[in-house]
Amino acid sequence: MAIEGVNLIGGEARQGKGPEFSGVAAASGETLAPVYREACPGDVAEAARHAGEASPVFAALSPEARASFLETVADRLEAARAEIVPRAMAESALPEARLNGELGRTIGQFRLFAEELRNGECFSIRIDPALPDRAPLPRPDMRLRKIPLGPVAVFGASNFPLAFSVAGGDTASALAAGCPVIAKAHPAHPGTSELAGKAINEAVRVHDLPAGTFALVHGGVEIGTSLVSAPEIKAVGFTGSQAGGLALAEVAAARPDPIPVYAEMSSINPVVILPAALSARGGEIGEGLAASTTLGAGQFCTNPGLVFVIDEAEADYLAFRDAVAAAIGGNEGAAMLTAGIASAYQDGVAALAGHPDVKELARGAAVNPCQPAALMETTAAAFRNDIALHREVFGAVSLIVRCSGLADVFTALAAMEGQLTATLQMEDTDMEAARDLLPLLERKAGRILVNGFPTGVEVCHAMVHGGPYPATTDARTTSVGTLAIDRFLRPVCYQNFPEGLLPEMLRDANPDALPRRVDGKREG
Amino acid sequence: MAIEGVNLIGGEARQGKGPEFSGVAAASGETLAPVYREACPGDVAEAARHAGEASPVFAALSPEARASFLETVADRLEAARAEIVPRAMAESALPEARLNGELGRTIGQFRLFAEELRNGECFSIRIDPALPDRAPLPRPDMRLRKIPLGPVAVFGASNFPLAFSVAGGDTASALAAGCPVIAKAHPAHPGTSELAGKAINEAVRVHDLPAGTFALVHGGVEIGTSLVSAPEIKAVGFTGSQAGGLALAEVAAARPDPIPVYAEMSSINPVVILPAALSARGGEIGEGLAASTTLGAGQFCTNPGLVFVIDEAEADYLAFRDAVAAAIGGNEGAAMLTAGIASAYQDGVAALAGHPDVKELARGAAVNPCQPAALMETTAAAFRNDIALHREVFGAVSLIVRCSGLADVFTALAAMEGQLTATLQMEDTDMEAARDLLPLLERKAGRILVNGFPTGVEVCHAMVHGGPYPATTDARTTSVGTLAIDRFLRPVCYQNFPEGLLPEMLRDANPDALPRRVDGKREG
Repeated sequence: MAIEGVNLIGGEARQGKGPEFSGVAAASGETLAPVYREACPGDVAEAARHAGEASPVFAALSPEARASFLETVADRLEAARAEIVPRAMAESALPEARLNGELGRTIGQFRLFAEELRNGECFSIRIDPALPDRAPLPRPDMRLRKIPLGPVAVFGASNFPLAFSVAGGDTASALAAGCPVIAKAHPAHPGTSELAGKAINEAVRVHDLPAGTFALVHGGVEIGTSLVSAPEIKAVGFTGSQAGGLALAEVAAARPDPIPVYAEMSSINPVVILPAALSARGGEIGEGLAASTTLGAGQFCTNPGLVFVIDEAEADYLAFRDAVAAAIGGNEGAAMLTAGIASAYQDGVAALAGHPDVKELARGAAVNPCQPAALMETTAAAFRNDIALHREVFGAVSLIVRCSGLADVFTALAAMEGQLTATLQMEDTDMEAARDLLPLLERKAGRILVNGFPTGVEVCHAMVHGGPYPATTDARTTSVGTLAIDRFLRPVCYQNFPEGLLPEMLRDANPDALPRRVDGKREG
Repeated sequence: MAIEGVNLIGGEARQGKGPEFSGVAAASGETLAPVYREACPGDVAEAARHAGEASPVFAALSPEARASFLETVADRLEAARAEIVPRAMAESALPEARLNGELGRTIGQFRLFAEELRNGECFSIRIDPALPDRAPLPRPDMRLRKIPLGPVAVFGASNFPLAFSVAGGDTASALAAGCPVIAKAHPAHPGTSELAGKAINEAVRVHDLPAGTFALVHGGVEIGTSLVSAPEIKAVGFTGSQAGGLALAEVAAARPDPIPVYAEMSSINPVVILPAALSARGGEIGEGLAASTTLGAGQFCTNPGLVFVIDEAEADYLAFRDAVAAAIGGNEGAAMLTAGIASAYQDGVAALAGHPDVKELARGAAVNPCQPAALMETTAAAFRNDIALHREVFGAVSLIVRCSGLADVFTALAAMEGQLTATLQMEDTDMEAARDLLPLLERKAGRILVNGFPTGVEVCHAMVHGGPYPATTDARTTSVGTLAIDRFLRPVCYQNFPEGLLPEMLRDANPDALPRRVDGKREG
């Protein structure tokens, strides 16, 4: 599979009609061949038209047929590993092992959604049989299943060129739901995007699906806006900045028919260290925190940027603090994904370091292009008084907030915005405090961890990678794990249908043996 | 239970601090005692504060405890039947049998949601056990359940003073989810609202729940805006006009933390009569259509306002048309819910009757205050050319669109906005046409009926009372049936929790024997 510098529209690999641009090597800043041309609004309209035509055909596939298609996507991604990983390394400056792992995760997501389709829970099938003798009025036969929303626009993230990008979780879950996808490649990794997109396109061809089942377009804000405005598009998946997510949400809300936007945006991921844990494992927690903070240059939406420590005993606190500071200070840093991200990180760290109530505890000794990790400390009072300290700085920096007791933690957390994660470090003797905090943490975050660190997002059934605004635009959903498919489905009720008109999965025969609720009771 | 002219705030029955108003007898226009005073924004803020305080306590109830509370609400509503029905008759001009039935439905909704809580499907429990030996990294224990969003604002509808109002489906499903409710009474039935609210309040007291679990406020647009803006409110349920629903959605989107609005707004509910059905049962279909159109003065969001007829044989069409026209012409009409609704109906019918491409086929002989039903006819070409003909006129009027073939129906439906329902009248020999139409109907409506009429919305597991915009603001949901609870829940993931900190329903012991997916496979 060669990198040709193309968009994928209507099943064809071709140059866009917009301006030229090129990939850039993240570590060196050098331009990478080939030259790309962005899509123009006309290209987007064409891709959307194809997606609209593909939609009813793709929606009508049986769960088994769609599962088989997803598995072919997985196979094709695996087959392209030797091309994808080196290009992603060049474009992102992320290390080989990480990108090999990320590709494995990306492939795994498609296989997991194939399983989920065969499992069939996602269709929420319900049958309330007719009650012809009910008084005063008979009940007609009522059947419910979930159907795909229609074509979905997916906006890839800069920090996961594979798992949250063109062939990432949004695309996998939308395709699993039966929705054609138009992916907008992130400009930071056009080559990786092209290779991933071609793997999907090959699967579309192998399964003889309509060409509009998948498309890939390159471009910036204008192309993103065209895509979200296209009448055929019925939902949007996005991972990126708050400004970007909110801009797309605004475009979506202003359509003649507003559509849902699932934007995962920002999170500082508070960690609370309770007193017994601090006393028992302060040093160990410190090392774990530093490792989580500096992993991948801190470029994770689940990076632990904020740590509340209840320091009942000064010595316990110092043991913890010194362990984090030593690890952060000794960290060699890493090149960041783009020059813009590196510069925003530098500005964010400088702002913290220059804050009158913030003390810099450690700074890594990174050499350009690597960015130094950093550790800061402030007080609960300062945190209460300045909302700027609540905000995420994307990169390897953590801010420790010293609290004199649980009340300080409550006040601070209650004032915070929604988060993807919240973490408790605790021992058995911290149980009462943990129980008191739990309802507040549930209200603030989509995932709550005990004695771990928030980086590392399992792809499984019980994952919630989501959370209250502004962590995401829709706290009712997750973008990772099998529940992510639910974002792209809606229920439809079929009343008094003759067997021959019913969709296959709702027929009495239940040919795929899918699980159903009959009169509310579970069968199968 | 006496009607005192009160709001219910913080568990107390008291007059609001806003302007005075009174209920009005819908049939006579006479003022009904007692005098009410609207809530003022300060009253709303107080109710919201109480709801915020009640929220974690109410959320923490076991499914059984919450089910039991819902059953007490049902009991108290039943106990107040003798007060509620006469007051609702006076305020709405709806007949006794209808209101007795509607109260039964309202009570039944609470009982059904109690069952649904005990059933436990709604919590979507998932457990992915730890994999300590997994390479390269172990998997922590991951558990998921759905938790309540937080306090919900409910806006009652004018046309269902019981089933879609203070104690209606939005309130029942929000309380079932574990969300405190603040209901804004519809000004058309303040007394009915007070009685229903008091029944809920009594149940709150009997179960010793926090006073903020339920509140009732009276007021207009300003109070509605205050309510949706209150920081404690986390979701909105609304049934009413498109203008009203969109205004609330705008307020909700402009909050510092935007919240979901579930607004059920408008629908003209197309009925398609296929040729064999027209030929076999034209007269019968006509009578059924007229009955559905005129039921309750046509004041249903599922009223069949639009009928596409494929008239391959002129005689078949005439048999159908004459049957509808005779029934509509002979209909005695009924008083409408409010003077405003009656006047909007008159305007809508006059606009249709005066349309150059619309022919009036029949008009009922109603005498003031009753409003005459009406039947209109137009051509497929006229329907294509004037979007005004696609719009709902709330009341007992239907517009027949004569189509020369299936292609006309396709073109017309494809150009239409989202609907609550779509109906097919068909015989076995119409099957091919029905199959061709189905994907389009699925895209346009939340519920599809065969050989029935859309009025009559079953409260059951398989019901979808919802649909694409502008039928509702959120096609992913239903406001009727057990799936309605999902609107007020969000998933939370608990990672690596010690057993003692886990919410009870996620513990290994599974004390309530709730259904779960373990590693994706269903148990229980």
